[in-house]
Amino acid sequence: MSTEPKGEGSREPTLTRAGIIAVGSELLTPFRTDTNSLFITGKLNDLGIEVTLKAIVGDDLQAIVSTFEHVRAHADLMVLTGGLGPTADDLTREAVALALGLSLDEDTEVVERIRRRFARRGLEMPEVNRRQALVPRGAIALENANGTAPGLWIEPAGGPVLLLPGPPREMQPMLDRVVETHLARYAGPSRLYRRVMRIAGRTESHVEEAVQPVYSRWAAASPPIATTILASPGQIELHLTVHAAAREEAESLLDRATSEIATVLGPDLFSADERLLEEVVGGLLRQRRFRIALAESCTGGLVASRLTDVPGSSDYVDASLVTYSNAAKTRFLGVPESLIRANGAVSAPVALGMATGVRERTGADVGVGITGIAGPGGGTPEKPVGLVVIAVAGPGDAISVRTFTFPGERRLVKFQASQAALDAVRRVLLDSAEPVLR
Amino acid sequence: MSTEPKGEGSREPTLTRAGIIAVGSELLTPFRTDTNSLFITGKLNDLGIEVTLKAIVGDDLQAIVSTFEHVRAHADLMVLTGGLGPTADDLTREAVALALGLSLDEDTEVVERIRRRFARRGLEMPEVNRRQALVPRGAIALENANGTAPGLWIEPAGGPVLLLPGPPREMQPMLDRVVETHLARYAGPSRLYRRVMRIAGRTESHVEEAVQPVYSRWAAASPPIATTILASPGQIELHLTVHAAAREEAESLLDRATSEIATVLGPDLFSADERLLEEVVGGLLRQRRFRIALAESCTGGLVASRLTDVPGSSDYVDASLVTYSNAAKTRFLGVPESLIRANGAVSAPVALGMATGVRERTGADVGVGITGIAGPGGGTPEKPVGLVVIAVAGPGDAISVRTFTFPGERRLVKFQASQAALDAVRRVLLDSAEPVLR
Repeated sequence: MSTEPKGEGSREPTLTRAGIIAVGSELLTPFRTDTNSLFITGKLNDLGIEVTLKAIVGDDLQAIVSTFEHVRAHADLMVLTGGLGPTADDLTREAVALALGLSLDEDTEVVERIRRRFARRGLEMPEVNRRQALVPRGAIALENANGTAPGLWIEPAGGPVLLLPGPPREMQPMLDRVVETHLARYAGPSRLYRRVMRIAGRTESHVEEAVQPVYSRWAAASPPIATTILASPGQIELHLTVHAAAREEAESLLDRATSEIATVLGPDLFSADERLLEEVVGGLLRQRRFRIALAESCTGGLVASRLTDVPGSSDYVDASLVTYSNAAKTRFLGVPESLIRANGAVSAPVALGMATGVRERTGADVGVGITGIAGPGGGTPEKPVGLVVIAVAGPGDAISVRTFTFPGERRLVKFQASQAALDAVRRVLLDSAEPVLR
Repeated sequence: MSTEPKGEGSREPTLTRAGIIAVGSELLTPFRTDTNSLFITGKLNDLGIEVTLKAIVGDDLQAIVSTFEHVRAHADLMVLTGGLGPTADDLTREAVALALGLSLDEDTEVVERIRRRFARRGLEMPEVNRRQALVPRGAIALENANGTAPGLWIEPAGGPVLLLPGPPREMQPMLDRVVETHLARYAGPSRLYRRVMRIAGRTESHVEEAVQPVYSRWAAASPPIATTILASPGQIELHLTVHAAAREEAESLLDRATSEIATVLGPDLFSADERLLEEVVGGLLRQRRFRIALAESCTGGLVASRLTDVPGSSDYVDASLVTYSNAAKTRFLGVPESLIRANGAVSAPVALGMATGVRERTGADVGVGITGIAGPGGGTPEKPVGLVVIAVAGPGDAISVRTFTFPGERRLVKFQASQAALDAVRRVLLDSAEPVLR
């Protein structure tokens, strides 16, 4: 860098507002969009920097330059991703140099670095890759451990500008390093701390109603805690955020707010530590030394797939029998044909027969049976699309059977059913603090 | 609308460039981003309109106004989503009226519509919802079948402006109607036609190498066909697009290009009609009247879940036995304990034993066995994380066993394994044109 190196303890003016621009014509098609900005936003929020504006622009020099200028009017930190490749389409370097009035020169050290990267794979560097060694005057080239495109860090008047490569596996580790080496210096004394609370078994308005008195009190506290409710099918999230100078202060405030909200929500709150429902259920099974077995019909294996997304789940997942046909329900689970004939495959007796059947046949502590009509076909006036029955058998002699009607299309019904099944298991496990003696 | 109504056949100046702005502070957090623009882009592309710029802005009047003005300099059609709710945070109406210099008046008809919507649910309209009836002078309020927020269609000098609600289930049907009632008039004689080709079993560079001579010839044709390659784990997509005045001309050009590419790619091309791999496999099973059964270990039910995402899949999916434990492999599939002990659970003999076991026990035509190490734990130097063995038994006496090593973290390994398993089934079915006599 051409300016003098900063001493260890030196402080730059505090950054509070960031703008993010994703560059690439493929991000303007119906098939791809920018998702890098989510990761970037998380890292910047940690430093107390909020994102005020995002833009997505194609491989068009003039559009990148003018969008850069527009976003910069709303931000004191600029982050751009993509457009750092070797081809003529890759214009981010040129556009930023142009917008900032900086000349663009080849950095021989960067050329060598790229050449060595090719050499390690026994290849000669194509001439076109020299473009990736163009560096705006005064900028620092950031090493890319997973690709040829270096990132760029520039500190012009008006606040720093960071250029990152587009592929997430190149962008993410580079940003992690830049936070330490360059960005942290610009972070203010106050950082943003966040707590995510996840809730199952209540609608958004029921959560809002219950929590509103608590969060309006915390919103008026000093420092204030802000609350956002995000609803998605089968799950409600509460995000609590607070700006604070010290981690201990923030965590202690968030702990208190969280515990007040937990009291209000009771067992409907399933996670206050970022864990997903399948992780929470897995944790309870591990803690209580239970093994689980599933008999899935309408969810088609989704519950087992979600449970086994969790590393180490082979410790507590025994088996899932996805018995789509009635014959399979009888053969593998021992659900009597006559029971299916008398009640229909989607019924409480069959769901319970599936749960107890899979439990007996695997010797698992907990058996789950799920049967329903995912749609779009197969519904009747008495048993409409979206009707799902979930039974949990065990641990011990615990039995729970519940019937739901979920809205939406096939995949959405499947997901909501998987969420309700995991939540049913969670509630049964909460009521059974100790492993049942066998 | 205050200007004169347009006659049936009247034509407006052709729109070619659209800008999309998503409004909402929650879209600037690490947890949510704009995805509405993908759906909108697809609909606009169909009309021959390309998206040149997208922006995401918070609930901040001045930022919405200035971003509107910036994006409008790059677009002759503006689409905004979100910020049409009833609260003080919902500023899109005000910002657009301000940017266009239009006054904002309450539309009594819209008030009545919202009031009736509440009344149908036995509720009184809260006063705050009157905000949703504010309409810029000269704008048309667009009815919302799934919510209270009406959309708005404005036709100022400089090109039309469309405001849509943020929730996808409100936005999508409204856009579909606006395309017919208002937007189609602005579409030029030439529209964009697209063909998506999906490929399994080749890397991106192998696809590129094979297809390059074909697509460079089509790129030079008149009208030219543009090709884009999109790589994702377990799948490569080729997107062919052409601008043409007549559907027949476009479809016939795309048919010819597609068939040339199909010849080059052979059976690695699995779909040229937007179908996913699970739909293609389902179609082959249905056509050949085969039933399938699965024995899944490392995929944990994901293959069955993907197959059963397809409506009507109960016609050909019999069962999937997710045998996570070795004991379950023996009990439910009849894989001998000694075989597992001698070869390890992740081995060709065990995968084949799982495939034949599940086939025999269900009486299905095709049995699939999948066993592997999804990670992050459980790997050894001989059997690393990502090692997956896939066996297909049937139809008839067909047998196929293949071993893969997939990169990436647990979920990615699971997805790639599910993709490889579905692809293995597809290839076996392609080789068996007729149902095997039983």
